[in-house]
Amino acid sequence: MSEEALSAVELQEAVTEALGKGKLKRVRRILRDLTAQEAVDLLQQLDEQQQQLVWNQIGDEAEQEILLLLDPALAEHLLLHSNDNPDTLEPEADEAEEVSPIAQVREALEGGRFKRALKILGKLHPAQAAGLLEALPPSERSSIWSRLDSARAGRILVHLREEVGAGLAMEMADGELLDAARQLDLDDLVDLIQALPFGPGRQLLLSMDVKKRQQLADMLSYPEESAGGLMNIDHISVRADVRVGSVLRYLRLLEDLPDHTDKLMVVDRENHYLGVLRLSRLVTSMADELVSEVMDSEFKALDVLTSSQEVARQFEDLDMLSAAVTSEDGVLLGRITVDDVMDSIREDSERAIMGMAGLDDEADMFAPVLTSTRRRSVWLGCNLITAFLAASVIGQFQGALEQIVALAVLMPVVASMGGIAGSQTLTLVIRGLALGQVDTGNLKVLLGKELGIGTLNGLLWAVLVAGVAILWFGSLGIGWVIGLAILINLVCAVLAGLLIPLILRRFGIDPALAGSMVLMAVTDVVGFSSFLGLATVFLL
Amino acid sequence: MSEEALSAVELQEAVTEALGKGKLKRVRRILRDLTAQEAVDLLQQLDEQQQQLVWNQIGDEAEQEILLLLDPALAEHLLLHSNDNPDTLEPEADEAEEVSPIAQVREALEGGRFKRALKILGKLHPAQAAGLLEALPPSERSSIWSRLDSARAGRILVHLREEVGAGLAMEMADGELLDAARQLDLDDLVDLIQALPFGPGRQLLLSMDVKKRQQLADMLSYPEESAGGLMNIDHISVRADVRVGSVLRYLRLLEDLPDHTDKLMVVDRENHYLGVLRLSRLVTSMADELVSEVMDSEFKALDVLTSSQEVARQFEDLDMLSAAVTSEDGVLLGRITVDDVMDSIREDSERAIMGMAGLDDEADMFAPVLTSTRRRSVWLGCNLITAFLAASVIGQFQGALEQIVALAVLMPVVASMGGIAGSQTLTLVIRGLALGQVDTGNLKVLLGKELGIGTLNGLLWAVLVAGVAILWFGSLGIGWVIGLAILINLVCAVLAGLLIPLILRRFGIDPALAGSMVLMAVTDVVGFSSFLGLATVFLL
Repeated sequence: MSEEALSAVELQEAVTEALGKGKLKRVRRILRDLTAQEAVDLLQQLDEQQQQLVWNQIGDEAEQEILLLLDPALAEHLLLHSNDNPDTLEPEADEAEEVSPIAQVREALEGGRFKRALKILGKLHPAQAAGLLEALPPSERSSIWSRLDSARAGRILVHLREEVGAGLAMEMADGELLDAARQLDLDDLVDLIQALPFGPGRQLLLSMDVKKRQQLADMLSYPEESAGGLMNIDHISVRADVRVGSVLRYLRLLEDLPDHTDKLMVVDRENHYLGVLRLSRLVTSMADELVSEVMDSEFKALDVLTSSQEVARQFEDLDMLSAAVTSEDGVLLGRITVDDVMDSIREDSERAIMGMAGLDDEADMFAPVLTSTRRRSVWLGCNLITAFLAASVIGQFQGALEQIVALAVLMPVVASMGGIAGSQTLTLVIRGLALGQVDTGNLKVLLGKELGIGTLNGLLWAVLVAGVAILWFGSLGIGWVIGLAILINLVCAVLAGLLIPLILRRFGIDPALAGSMVLMAVTDVVGFSSFLGLATVFLL
Repeated sequence: MSEEALSAVELQEAVTEALGKGKLKRVRRILRDLTAQEAVDLLQQLDEQQQQLVWNQIGDEAEQEILLLLDPALAEHLLLHSNDNPDTLEPEADEAEEVSPIAQVREALEGGRFKRALKILGKLHPAQAAGLLEALPPSERSSIWSRLDSARAGRILVHLREEVGAGLAMEMADGELLDAARQLDLDDLVDLIQALPFGPGRQLLLSMDVKKRQQLADMLSYPEESAGGLMNIDHISVRADVRVGSVLRYLRLLEDLPDHTDKLMVVDRENHYLGVLRLSRLVTSMADELVSEVMDSEFKALDVLTSSQEVARQFEDLDMLSAAVTSEDGVLLGRITVDDVMDSIREDSERAIMGMAGLDDEADMFAPVLTSTRRRSVWLGCNLITAFLAASVIGQFQGALEQIVALAVLMPVVASMGGIAGSQTLTLVIRGLALGQVDTGNLKVLLGKELGIGTLNGLLWAVLVAGVAILWFGSLGIGWVIGLAILINLVCAVLAGLLIPLILRRFGIDPALAGSMVLMAVTDVVGFSSFLGLATVFLL
């Protein structure tokens, strides 16, 4: 017998049993299927403690309706003792301004005051709620997640980092996940399916109706980082040979346009893209004008395979709010809106910064310690190889180090100055490559300029460090050697900073990721070998 | 006598003289003030060589008209020998696909084929043209800049990095700069004035008409990095008590709406902000509905002093295309559009990445070598201090180093592993702080997790490095010491990576800028002192 068909007595028994076992989630599930009147009947049959527990599981939406039907005395009692009673919150209100939402939610969760936690979360926009959820430890995150209704959960889901979102989606019952997924735009649904493990993702895809499944399959066929991966299919298209008045009548029938509709797409009979009709033009046009007279046919569509970085670049350069996406043969497939582009820009920038430290920007900040340890150890392992490379260079000069201990003291100075100078050039060149501002057309000029800077800074710091070394160790020879080594290392560092990203790119490796580690290897090796090598030649 | 009033003979003399002195810019200035017929008359009076030179100075816009008026034989001759003749370009056309625009423009400039260079630049959107100009060495940049007409120069100017833009603006004659400035939206004009040195900026401001000057002064009074600094005043506002039909009639009078108008602002009699009327709602409303019935009064305005980062965050979270900006007392001041927000996000991300290497993202990639050297030396100087700090730590253990040279060989390994582990935590925490996902509310959880990761990775790499050290130097003692030192350094590094950004922020220093250098100082000092200290205690 399913829960929906329970009699009042069975219902009471089921709830009492669930409460006895502390299965509050089960209670919430039962409550969700009840009408307000059924819930009221149930409440009035329970003892005082049970009433309070059950009351706390009732959702905000149902609460008002149930309160109206309840015996006024009981209603007042429940409200007074409810754990999100405004009165009992009063003393905290003053400091609430200073306590962060994260702390507020965590405090509420620890005190078992789930309704209060949900209320704090409820005040936030889905994207902000997602940010807050990510900042919670996983157990607390799950505990609040299980209490969200599916509609809201769906809207939050798309804003979560991939790992967090997939994890929470997997915690949902199939039916809940499907409910949540129904709230999503197609492009967000595509992202969700891509973030889920293969099995559940496929299952979610299969549980959609035939039409939506076909659309999803189409969209899933484009690479994630392409115009096809960014596009949505909620555009409105009109034919070029109709009049403005007809378009306006058609739009009025729709009542509300899809979010971020700033233009309509103009197509021919075969759905070939012809141009766009801006809303701002539409509202300033006369009803008897033809769409073909007021449309903008200069506005180019994006090819479905354009890379997402190129899409972002075009949105920025041309200040677009939305753009059509077409197939190779000019058929209109969908549109990309600026909000998705903005997300993609932010993600790219995060990925770059996190990537430089060998981190994954989609990972959960609170992933299990073992998982995080394994992930981070990869980068440490790469570094160990370069560190041992540097050590082996030093190992070649043990004789010199045994005789002049000052070399051991000063050698990190030479290496680190080279590292910094090199990373400046590296950063400049990586940005230049990304923006298309550095290529064979101006490489020589840049090389000349960077070598000039490297030499000048090399001379400056060579003199300064040499001076300090002479004063410190009272040896003119050490001064000469370290000065020369710094000059050599800074010039080589600048050269390496310029060439490494070009070489990495030639091999298809993202210079932003691997660049600084390779550079560090070069400046360490050159720094140590030039300093210790010069010392061996001149000081021994 | 001014140039405009020259007779035909005087004109010919003036041009001949300018050509004789090689003052092509002067010739262009003269040509600009002539009608097509006057230019034709002038051309026909010159000798063949002069004709060709003058012809090359004629702008693309004037070219067609002049060709029509010219004697056909002369026209053909000029076209055939013109230095951007399509025929002579033919052989290059095949490889043009592979040669970058930068190379193409530079090649054209070197060959003195300015029209060709201008044509390549002319095909690009202003933002792309700005990117191309930035990629040119300063002399070539100036040479092409001086040939751009002011209208186009103005549109390009706002997309240039501050330093490049200010430099080129200063090269323009006052009149030209004023012409260029007239093309700009108010918000871009504000940016330009802020980028110029005080004197010329003020002069530009004063040369505007009274109304514009007042508006500019208002906008200049807001901090650059605030909603006021991002806003424009090109919004359209309507009253809540008028009908949709009247609004549509009003818009039709305007013919074209300002760029990026996706909503109108709804205000009361005193210009207080009441809400927005979306165009997408407007086109689906009936003419007899009141604005107050179809407006969205939930849509919040931004306070004029909101930081630009917070503005960006809200645009992203709420997926906005534009938002109203109001004063503290709710008066509508202007609006911010998503294109400016997108630029601001990109700039922030560039600033962060460049800042980590001590670079200024607004600086000219081809600034003079001395200027760049000076700028970069600051960061090298900071690093030198931390490098000498590390060296002085090593200096404390000269005794140990003299006796066991293996210590000198291995010590960089300990320091660098700590540096990498620390930078991973640092990066994570800096992002968390920026997104508001790390604060006192979850610091303890994060600390626990990071210490766990640090300890596990410390153990892992301690064992591995110890093994290598034992095999390399055949000493069990060195293995123990380096393993222990690595464990200590990794745990301390993780702790430092967590605390340094919090401490820097407390002191008002941007952790993204100074964080990694301070961290490196800590991991070097801890790494060297733990390794050499343990060696002194256990191995001597």
